[in-house]
Amino acid sequence: MHNEHAKLDLIKNSIITIPNYPKEGILFRDITSLLELPEAFKSTIDLFVKHYQDKKINKVVGTEARGFIFAAPVALALNVGFIPVRKPHKLPRHVFKEEYQLEYGTDALEIHTDAIKPGERVLIIDDLLATGGTVAATTKLIRKSGGIVEDAAFVIDLPDLGGREKLTDIGVNCYTLVEFAGH
Amino acid sequence: MHNEHAKLDLIKNSIITIPNYPKEGILFRDITSLLELPEAFKSTIDLFVKHYQDKKINKVVGTEARGFIFAAPVALALNVGFIPVRKPHKLPRHVFKEEYQLEYGTDALEIHTDAIKPGERVLIIDDLLATGGTVAATTKLIRKSGGIVEDAAFVIDLPDLGGREKLTDIGVNCYTLVEFAGH
Repeated sequence: MHNEHAKLDLIKNSIITIPNYPKEGILFRDITSLLELPEAFKSTIDLFVKHYQDKKINKVVGTEARGFIFAAPVALALNVGFIPVRKPHKLPRHVFKEEYQLEYGTDALEIHTDAIKPGERVLIIDDLLATGGTVAATTKLIRKSGGIVEDAAFVIDLPDLGGREKLTDIGVNCYTLVEFAGH
Repeated sequence: MHNEHAKLDLIKNSIITIPNYPKEGILFRDITSLLELPEAFKSTIDLFVKHYQDKKINKVVGTEARGFIFAAPVALALNVGFIPVRKPHKLPRHVFKEEYQLEYGTDALEIHTDAIKPGERVLIIDDLLATGGTVAATTKLIRKSGGIVEDAAFVIDLPDLGGREKLTDIGVNCYTLVEFAGH
């Protein structure tokens, strides 16, 4: 399947919507149904690779845990290192840490201090752009390391949640494949 | 690089050992240093794919979170669905759940009940074979779903921890790339 429009349709149609999960009123967009369909999963990776193959990316960063599923194959296809950004106490070497706000309370993410070299061009990949909180924290970690965030790429955009605007405000451009209205 | 022996050397040499992490006396084998080297990461995936490409695998299962990093690219290369096995309350649809023992207390893993179809041949991929506890629980989840566990494949084997024997006892064959003595 070589047509970009057909690939995007396949990707969007393969994502199941679960009403009232994890709580009342939320429409949860489930990427596991996409992962089960090899053609849909492969199309997702192909579109990311096509978009970034000439952008001189040096590292691909994925955030724990669903981000790993898309970021690792893209790093392999671009022939660059894959860098995991993880929840606290998961990475064994020296780390930078960034806290970020959740709806209730805070969480934090870490990156190895030597994972990104100063001046490297970094692509962040995650499954879902919602409020942009985890990618904003990931951007801070990359910048602490001296890296340049080239872009953040997502399978799904939920534009009503304002994540793109939040990331644009801190100088991060977003590339997204499919979007859904609502939360 | 086409020589299997050279690939295995590269993989083994790319894994950093962190002494006394996460606690005194443990030699932690860190796969993030492998992921940073595209040739080492690619060689890892290539060896898995070469080993399984003619085995008529129907699904590849990866366990949260590091298993995702290796299992997703192998699923893509084998052109089969990728199924995540996750910690509780992460999967949005109906799940099977299995508890397993930790050194102190218990943890649990879940799989969507419809992710594996009865009779499907399933390959489990994880980063590290230690005591085999998470893969034993994953095997139970796959068998509850009606699937057949073809094999469990790991980047690293720590043979002194007895994981291979534990998995053999429940009828799971293990394929591992590199091994390290000690814990």
